[in-house]
Amino acid sequence: MQYQATVKIEQKPGMLDPEGTTVKRALEHLGYASESVKTAKLFEIVLEAESASAAKQQVDEMCQKLIANPIVDKYSIEIEEKK
Amino acid sequence: MQYQATVKIEQKPGMLDPEGTTVKRALEHLGYASESVKTAKLFEIVLEAESASAAKQQVDEMCQKLIANPIVDKYSIEIEEKK
Repeated sequence: MQYQATVKIEQKPGMLDPEGTTVKRALEHLGYASESVKTAKLFEIVLEAESASAAKQQVDEMCQKLIANPIVDKYSIEIEEKK
Repeated sequence: MQYQATVKIEQKPGMLDPEGTTVKRALEHLGYASESVKTAKLFEIVLEAESASAAKQQVDEMCQKLIANPIVDKYSIEIEEKK
C-alpha cells in the first residue's frame, strides 16, 4: 500500500524564529499588521508500507535519524492513503 | 476577531526540489526507501480582521507582495478562528 506522510517540523517553544520575525517586520513595512508570524517546514514523503501505522512508525524513525533536530525542533506526522 | 492563517508554499510542478532529492537519497543511505520526498514551507500568521474572508484576502495580498515567489511557487491559504 502506498501512503503519503506529511511531516511538519516546527521549532520548540522558546526557540528564536528569525525568519518569522523578519517576515513580520517586512509585512509591517508594506502596511500589513500581524500579531505573529511563525515559520515551519513540511516534508511530504510517499512510501510503501503494510499499514498506516507501519508507515507512521517508519517516518517517525526517519524524523529521529535525519529530518528533525531533536534539540530545537518538534515534529508531527500525518499519514494518508495515497490514491 | 483574531485569525490564524496557515500559508503553504510549494514549488510549482516541474520545478526542481534539490532539498527533497537530497533527503530522499540520504534516507536511502540509512535504509529507508521512499517513492518521493517533497519539501514545502509553512507560514503561520496571526492577524486581526473583520471576518475570515477579510483575513484571507489580506493574507493573499501578503503572499503576492512578499511571501511567495509567483514565478516558482504556488501557495494555498487556510484560515481558522484563533481561540
